[in-house]
This record gives sequence, C-alpha cells and structure tokens, in this order.
Amino acid sequence: MVQRIDVECKNESYPIFIGELPQKLEFEGSVLVVTNSKVAGIHLRTLLQCIYAKECFVCVLEDGEEYKNIQSVQRILETAFIHKLDRQSTMIAFGGGVVGDIVGFAAGIFMRGISFVQIPTTLLAQVDASIGGKTAINNKFGKNLIGLFHQPKAVYVNPFFLGTLSHREKSSGIAEIIKMAVMFDKDFFEWLSMQNLQGSSLLEAIMRAILIKKEVVVKDELERGVRMALNYGHTFGHVIEKETQYKQYLHGEAVSMGMIMANRLAVQLGYLSVDEEFRIQKILEKNDLPIYYKIPSMESFYQSLFLDKKNENHQIRFILPHNIGRFIPCTHLSKAEIMRTLEEFCDD
Amino acid sequence: MVQRIDVECKNESYPIFIGELPQKLEFEGSVLVVTNSKVAGIHLRTLLQCIYAKECFVCVLEDGEEYKNIQSVQRILETAFIHKLDRQSTMIAFGGGVVGDIVGFAAGIFMRGISFVQIPTTLLAQVDASIGGKTAINNKFGKNLIGLFHQPKAVYVNPFFLGTLSHREKSSGIAEIIKMAVMFDKDFFEWLSMQNLQGSSLLEAIMRAILIKKEVVVKDELERGVRMALNYGHTFGHVIEKETQYKQYLHGEAVSMGMIMANRLAVQLGYLSVDEEFRIQKILEKNDLPIYYKIPSMESFYQSLFLDKKNENHQIRFILPHNIGRFIPCTHLSKAEIMRTLEEFCDD
Repeated sequence: MVQRIDVECKNESYPIFIGELPQKLEFEGSVLVVTNSKVAGIHLRTLLQCIYAKECFVCVLEDGEEYKNIQSVQRILETAFIHKLDRQSTMIAFGGGVVGDIVGFAAGIFMRGISFVQIPTTLLAQVDASIGGKTAINNKFGKNLIGLFHQPKAVYVNPFFLGTLSHREKSSGIAEIIKMAVMFDKDFFEWLSMQNLQGSSLLEAIMRAILIKKEVVVKDELERGVRMALNYGHTFGHVIEKETQYKQYLHGEAVSMGMIMANRLAVQLGYLSVDEEFRIQKILEKNDLPIYYKIPSMESFYQSLFLDKKNENHQIRFILPHNIGRFIPCTHLSKAEIMRTLEEFCDD
Repeated sequence: MVQRIDVECKNESYPIFIGELPQKLEFEGSVLVVTNSKVAGIHLRTLLQCIYAKECFVCVLEDGEEYKNIQSVQRILETAFIHKLDRQSTMIAFGGGVVGDIVGFAAGIFMRGISFVQIPTTLLAQVDASIGGKTAINNKFGKNLIGLFHQPKAVYVNPFFLGTLSHREKSSGIAEIIKMAVMFDKDFFEWLSMQNLQGSSLLEAIMRAILIKKEVVVKDELERGVRMALNYGHTFGHVIEKETQYKQYLHGEAVSMGMIMANRLAVQLGYLSVDEEFRIQKILEKNDLPIYYKIPSMESFYQSLFLDKKNENHQIRFILPHNIGRFIPCTHLSKAEIMRTLEEFCDD
C-alpha cells in the first residue's frame, strides 16, 4: 500500500509517496541518477529497473558528509553537461541526506534550475532531509552555508531501503525523529519513549515525522519562523560536525549531542526542567545515540556558532525546547551565558 | 529628476530608479559592495559616500568576462564569511553585467539566499543585464550555464556612470538596445535608425529599453516563453564568446555578430527580407559594432550550439526576427539547414 502526502508550497506542490516504488517511474526528458558508491552497490539495480526515460545516466559520488562540497557539485554538473542534459531533464537524488542536499543544489543551479526527484535511502533522509527543498553544501567555514531553496518534484520514501542500513545510520535518523517530537508533539514523544523502533512501530514513527515535517514546511517554506525549530540541536551540532571534519560523527549523532547541549542551555535559562532534560537524554541513549561531545576549545567553539544561518546581526540564535512539545527561539544571550553551558562540555 | 519603474514579480516587486543615486542609501544589516578593479578606481568613492550601514565591506574582482567563473563567486563568498555576513546582510553589485551576474549568483546561494542590489555602471547592464534576476557564471562548457533566478531588491540606473565608458563599451550596450527594438518594437527601431545615440537621445533610448525589458520580465519571469526573445543573437553570440575564450569581444559585440548570423538564418527560412537584414546590419555598423565573425570550425561551432539553455530534447532553439518588431522561436531545423547558414561565415 502506497500512501500519499502532498506538500503545498507557494509556487508548486509536490507529492511524497510512502511505500514501494512504482513499477514504472516515467520521465519525459533525460534523467541523471546521482548516488553514492555504497548505495549504488546495494540498490542501484533496483532503481534503474523502474526508470523509463529516453536516456538515463548515472553519477556515483563518494559516500560521506566530507564529500558534501563544491567538488561533488562540479562532478554532477560536469556529467550533466557532457551528456547534454537540458531544462527538460531531471536529476534523481538516490541516497541519504548528503546526496539529497548536493543533488538539489546542483539541480537548482544547472541552467538556472531543473527538476529533481528525491528517493531517500536512509531513515534520516526519509523523515527529514528529503522534504522541504533545503539544499546545501559545506565549506571550510561551516555546514550548509552555501545552498538554495529548491523544492523537489516528488519524494519517494520506500522503507524497503532501510533494511540494509547500519545500526548507527538508523539511530542517526531516529535522532531527527526525536527532535521533531521534542519541538512539536509531546504525545509523540511519550509514544516514542515507550517504543523499540522497528517494523511497524518504525513505520508509524516515519509517517508521524513526515507529517510534522510537511506541516512545518508548508507553514514556513523559507525558514523565516516556525521552520527554524527544526534546527533544534543543529546550532551546536553543526559546530561539532565542523570540528570533527564531518568524519567522526553521522549527522544525526552530532544533532543528538547538540540537543543535549541545547537542553543544558534551556535548563540554565529556565525553559526546561532537569527531569525533562533527563527524559530526552534517556530516549537518545536508548536509541544508542552519543550524548557527550567534549569541546576541545571553548573559544573556538563559541566563534564557530556565529556562522550559523539563523543568526541575525551578529547574535547567535538558539532554538531551545520549552518543556517537551514546544520550542522557544533565543537570541541576545551574553557570551557569559553561552560559555556557562559550553563549560559543562569541557574537561579543563 | 529620478524616475521610478516597478517590476512586479510573482513573489516580490522591486523598483528601478533612473537618475542620480540617492544621497543616502540606507541598509539595516551589513553591506558587501562587489565591484571590479576598473570601476573601483573611478567610481567607488562616489558610491561609498552614499552608503549608510552598520558595516560596509568591499570585494574587488578583476575586470572582464573571463573572470565570470566559479572562482570569482568563491572570492565573494569567502569575503562574506570572513566578515560574518548573515541573512540580514545585502550585497551590492557595482559594475557591468559581469559583476551583476556574479554577485546575483553569490547572493542567491549565500546561506540559501540574501538580498542584493544592482547599481549598473555600463550601458549594457543598465538597459538589460541588471533587470530581471537572471544570474549566472560561465564554465568550460559555455556561457551562463550555471546560475539561478534571484531578483534584486532594487536597481539604480545612474547615467552619470556612462560618462567614463569607452566607446566599445557604449556600443556593446547599444547592441542590446537594438536587439530589443528588432524583437519587440518597430517604431523604436525606426527611431533608433535616425539617432546618434548620445545625451538626451541616449537617455530616451535607455528609458525605452528598460520599459521593454521590464514588460517582458513581468510577463515571463522564468523564461518559459516570451522572455526567450531577449536571446536573439545570443544563441550564436554565446558560442562566439566561448570560442574566443571570453577575451576578444565584449558581450554586446558578440551579440551583434550573433544577430547577423540569426538574421541570415531568418532570411534563409523566409522570415526576414534581405532589405530588413540590411537595415539591421546598417544600424549595427553605424554604432561601430562588429558584424562578421569568421567561424574556425563549422562542426565545433555547431556542436557548441547544443549547450544553449533554451534547447529542448537535443533540438537547438533559435530566436529569429520575423520582420522587424516581431520574433519567432525556431526549433526542429535540420543540421543541413543550420550548416547552410554557418557556411556563410566560414572562409573554407
């Protein structure tokens, strides 16, 4: 059974299909499938069997967040130009959040923008990254600092692909599900606390997370308000990813440690009780997510917080939980207040 | 006296001001002025005197179409990150069409898009390139192949800057004015034929060209229909620019030679009379524009035509004059038909 959820955006709407891939995925123009070496080895054949297009090309990137850079974008564009793709062509992002972000960006700037389709293969991409049209790459200044909003033409969420995920990758996706529950839905959080996410309970969690994500995106396509709440844990998490050269942690793992930091700040500011903080920590631990990042240098960590896209006029904007199920954006904190939180993650 | 023309786009409108710069150009966030070495030397002081912002930074690029590449974009972004620009910041494109295209692109992908303002200093940029939100860079495959649509926040057209243009640069801008007349406005063409464009007649030509450009952009923001007519001369012209490494000809000069080629094709297909062809040639010559490009290799010129963004399903789309004042898009030509035109620009 395939379920369909429509994301009604300002300029055009697009469907998210949850379930098996259609037997025929038809395209009018040429198609360029972009994937990574890992996904290609396991699932590419399955995908290519469904694609019906005049021409279909494949571009395989290396696997990992450290390849989410301008060089990968240039490889995709080069392939597209060599095969003479045009404005009627479609790019397909087949992989996790990294592939989705890179391909969305490449499709957004190729000949001033062509269509792309998301076929996410990781839990993280299925519940979060593939929906909402955020595309980006990293650079030496930080994470996702270059990019654009470019909505996909369609998203195909097929839980079948999750069967080959490693335990770490699955946990990484669960971190984003927990994020949405803490920000928007206390009942969902309570329910998650009682589940061992697998089989039908995982499918239910996916569906609920997608519905939350869709609601948020439709309300605030360009992240000027409520959508910022999806950045809970990310302000700190992005710095952790940058400091570890995007190599040591999966994105969801960094977000997990980032949520722990955000919670600490929220407790210090009186938005979250210690008991709630503990409950969030417990659910992260139960899903085998890392919860403690040791900050090597407080000053350098603090400086890196300034390159977050949510900031305004040199003020860091934090998104904090306001009890469980609500959020509060928080700017105008003094350096001392922020340092007080960072200190707790520093051995010195 | 400053005149104001509003460009009503789908998501937001923006004003074009024609006349002197305001004494105070105020901005809420930080400002990054991007210009080239030539314009900086002559006019930067004048501009900086008007800018009122908390912080103002300057990034100076090399002058010339050959610098319209990803490296220049990266220089701008690097400056922006180093000075911690954020989503409230504004970039100002201060220069000709090259600067405008690069800055628009950089602003469009910096943190998924920030505001930018166009202050064009060349005739070509004032009548054409600065209006309509097309941004792009070149790469080894061709011209303007990477980019996006990103509308400026405002455009300031100050004819004062034209005083320091070289004769070639002025002619290059006139080529685009002639383009608009041939495509859309026979009366304007007749009028242009009788003018020596300078002083008040140049100002009138600027105003009429801006009005045409604005009409076209409002009707077809994303170039799916009528806006393609602004590409008259460009299908051939882009190949000329690419073949001469963007160094030998100014953009308008390449467009002039490209219009001559398009006219030849139009005559051969019966859309334009030989007399009309001659009249267009005469007006280009009168304005000291080059009219003959000698094609080094017909086959390679032909192949390069395939990388034009207007193409669809491997068919080259030409925009041809249909008499003077009207246009006709033309696909489905055979290779033989195209080669017949190219032959006339080949000595062999």
